[in-house]
Amino acid sequence: MANELTSRATDYAQWYNDLILKGGLADYSAVRGCMVIKPYGYALWENMKDVLDRMFKETGHVNAYFPLFVPKSFLEKEEGHAEGFAKECAVVTHYRLKGDPNNKGKLIVDPEAKLEEELIVRPTSEAIIWNAYKDWIQSYRDLPLLINQWANVVRWEMRTRLFLRTAEFLWQEGHTAHATADEAIQEAEKMLHVYADFVENYMALPVMKGVKTPNERFAGALETYCIEALMQDGKALQAGTSHFLGQNFAKAFDVKYLTKENRQEFVWATSWGVSTRLIGALVMAHSDDQGLVLPPRIAPLQVVIVPIFKGAEQKAAVDEKVSPLIADLKARGISVKYDDSENNRPGWKFAEYELKGVPVRIAIGPKDIEHGVVEIARRDTKEKTSVPVEGVAQYIQDLLENIQQNLYNRALAYREEHITAVNSWEEFKAVLEQKGGFVSAHWDGTPETEEKIKDETKATIRCIPLNNMQESGSCVYSGKPSSQRVLFALAY
Amino acid sequence: MANELTSRATDYAQWYNDLILKGGLADYSAVRGCMVIKPYGYALWENMKDVLDRMFKETGHVNAYFPLFVPKSFLEKEEGHAEGFAKECAVVTHYRLKGDPNNKGKLIVDPEAKLEEELIVRPTSEAIIWNAYKDWIQSYRDLPLLINQWANVVRWEMRTRLFLRTAEFLWQEGHTAHATADEAIQEAEKMLHVYADFVENYMALPVMKGVKTPNERFAGALETYCIEALMQDGKALQAGTSHFLGQNFAKAFDVKYLTKENRQEFVWATSWGVSTRLIGALVMAHSDDQGLVLPPRIAPLQVVIVPIFKGAEQKAAVDEKVSPLIADLKARGISVKYDDSENNRPGWKFAEYELKGVPVRIAIGPKDIEHGVVEIARRDTKEKTSVPVEGVAQYIQDLLENIQQNLYNRALAYREEHITAVNSWEEFKAVLEQKGGFVSAHWDGTPETEEKIKDETKATIRCIPLNNMQESGSCVYSGKPSSQRVLFALAY
Repeated sequence: MANELTSRATDYAQWYNDLILKGGLADYSAVRGCMVIKPYGYALWENMKDVLDRMFKETGHVNAYFPLFVPKSFLEKEEGHAEGFAKECAVVTHYRLKGDPNNKGKLIVDPEAKLEEELIVRPTSEAIIWNAYKDWIQSYRDLPLLINQWANVVRWEMRTRLFLRTAEFLWQEGHTAHATADEAIQEAEKMLHVYADFVENYMALPVMKGVKTPNERFAGALETYCIEALMQDGKALQAGTSHFLGQNFAKAFDVKYLTKENRQEFVWATSWGVSTRLIGALVMAHSDDQGLVLPPRIAPLQVVIVPIFKGAEQKAAVDEKVSPLIADLKARGISVKYDDSENNRPGWKFAEYELKGVPVRIAIGPKDIEHGVVEIARRDTKEKTSVPVEGVAQYIQDLLENIQQNLYNRALAYREEHITAVNSWEEFKAVLEQKGGFVSAHWDGTPETEEKIKDETKATIRCIPLNNMQESGSCVYSGKPSSQRVLFALAY
Repeated sequence: MANELTSRATDYAQWYNDLILKGGLADYSAVRGCMVIKPYGYALWENMKDVLDRMFKETGHVNAYFPLFVPKSFLEKEEGHAEGFAKECAVVTHYRLKGDPNNKGKLIVDPEAKLEEELIVRPTSEAIIWNAYKDWIQSYRDLPLLINQWANVVRWEMRTRLFLRTAEFLWQEGHTAHATADEAIQEAEKMLHVYADFVENYMALPVMKGVKTPNERFAGALETYCIEALMQDGKALQAGTSHFLGQNFAKAFDVKYLTKENRQEFVWATSWGVSTRLIGALVMAHSDDQGLVLPPRIAPLQVVIVPIFKGAEQKAAVDEKVSPLIADLKARGISVKYDDSENNRPGWKFAEYELKGVPVRIAIGPKDIEHGVVEIARRDTKEKTSVPVEGVAQYIQDLLENIQQNLYNRALAYREEHITAVNSWEEFKAVLEQKGGFVSAHWDGTPETEEKIKDETKATIRCIPLNNMQESGSCVYSGKPSSQRVLFALAY
């Protein structure tokens, strides 16, 4: 199994695809750009979703569900928004098929069932949601309105990659309405911190928090906050965004509220989202040439037990030792699978669970029983240890935490090594080409320079870090004065 | 609030709409036939989903996610399936919009971005899923494949009603693959029992289990199992279905497996689903003229506490009594809200929580404190009782179970009173018109008679009950011989 994987050094992109496909996370589908999320990948998404959903609820948000379709005229209402999404919209134009009169058994679109107004399959839901908010918000008493939606969205991307960029993807989108700009900004920042908390403490992936340049903002936003993670190939990946939308959508959809002082004011908005793209980030950040490496806190399966035996008698002896261990692990809330299937040999199973990134593997055979131990292999470092059966559940519980922490530390060390401050254009290009990672450089603050740097190197400004240190310098490209460094990188 | 509701006697359909809209479960949307599920309604759906998801997992199923779009040619592959769904399909024909050259700020469909093959927004996912299963199933070792999907689907219905019939709805769809017909039939039956268990024990709604007549089967199924519930207006509502699909989809998508004996055989299939329609059933089964009545096991909020006070001192005294009670209830896993907002008076709050169907309301004021009691009102019977503060959390825990049971018993008694055996066509029509409910009658087993009865009375055969008693008789319509009674009703 595992040795059929392409190595990172050979072809990083192929390695990634191999892991997704052979690790059983997802599959290509017959629909261009859409993927199938397979049970193992979906279980991972469910775990991520459960944690995020709890975090959203703890910060006062509730879930709701809005229509899949956005009337074309709604999309037009916020100009920047329309421009940003028009080019990648799946458009429903008809509502009925009929039998093809010239070709029995085939279906054609019924020309008589043309919609008066085309419907867009939502690329995001600001337009349809703000149209609903118009009826929901009358007075300051109705604010803040703190709603989240778990949904599928469609953006017709030309070049797609499993999880990272697919035409349809799953995500959550928060859409909140506030009485003041300050409150909305605080909300956008709060949710950015929630995302960072989740990605760092559950996905074991350190992130840079910052804001996007105007060029890179969400279509329709006044400010886009983001978290940026670094992958093992030195490329950055935007892991989540949170937008301060000002009054743009309130004005586009005429959403006003009566203030305590009896005045009509437009409402202030935020939106924020993370998607199944995070799974791509997770895979690229931690995995190795033997397969997936999943952080214990969100792994679909935390512990697998593989029995080593010949014949029914040895099997029975192993079963007897394993059974109380399973009960003990489950009582601690640890997910565990006892793979005693006889279809495959232990060596095959070892490779299979390594490929699948199960954090802890336990092997137990007659010799282990004789010595009162089990063999424990951790996926992150591949170390194996013999551990006394006595107290092994506690050992595993601690080990899972240890692995979680180790993955984070490893990713953090890599990230720290890959933030390079540069002071010249030559240095900028050399670091990008040879070392990769984030390049911290002075920028003159103009979109023109940003564009030119992108054209020449493909590097984009990933973010202007939050609470960025102010320091005088000169732009690495134009030489013009600059007051701060920003983070550039090649990115997914 | 509550007194603005239409009563059931005045206009049952309007009463239902009032409850959905004013109870905050859902709202109309700007998209024809699509609704917005509001936070309170969505919280109800989340609770239902959580229970069902656990039940599916306990019976060995895993979740996955398949594309929203079904290529038109896939839908054509299973003939009956295509016929059943072609007339209500939302069709994506283009993948891009562009600025209208004649009308600045407006968007038009880009004629150059026409899809080579139209994509159907899934009305159900058999076609796209069986196309994937083709690659996933090679040998008997890959079977059974037990997969469920939580998703949105679209069926372009002409007449829609909130929750009961909407163009887009949320549901789960199980799709399983088996080595033998027997195993697939067992699966279909097992899931029917899971649905019945859920609807009866969580939604407090008794159901009749049975199979559909060939006329009423799912498009593409060899057998459709169903559960049928009875609403307060005497109409039946199909609450869930489970289908034995035979080898129809395996043949349409060429899904074969290698048997242990090394033969290639087509795989056997089931599919099964329940949807947000269940929320409509829930509302119509239990609610009354004052508002929603929600079963405690799935109610978004189980207990509300309303303080009665004048001034800060009384408020502080109430707070002090309430705070340990809230802690105690939460420790028991009971959801509770302390509504001490000063925007509204207690009487308004009472009506509001009655409208929202919160199972238990606690009121507590200075007099109650003086007497060491709280006032408890149960939503189902509207009885009020003064209960000693000592031990009140346990009292409420028991009361919630009692309410759950009472709702079920009440619905069961209604249902039992509304199954009427008839032996003549006159009686059949009279019962349908005057009493409603299920009419148990002999039927000659032909689709012709079934159609004629439907044309004359609008009644359909809801099901042939499982383990139906065999008894000779003559068809209530045609007079021809019949071996069993079936259940007819008017239905949603």
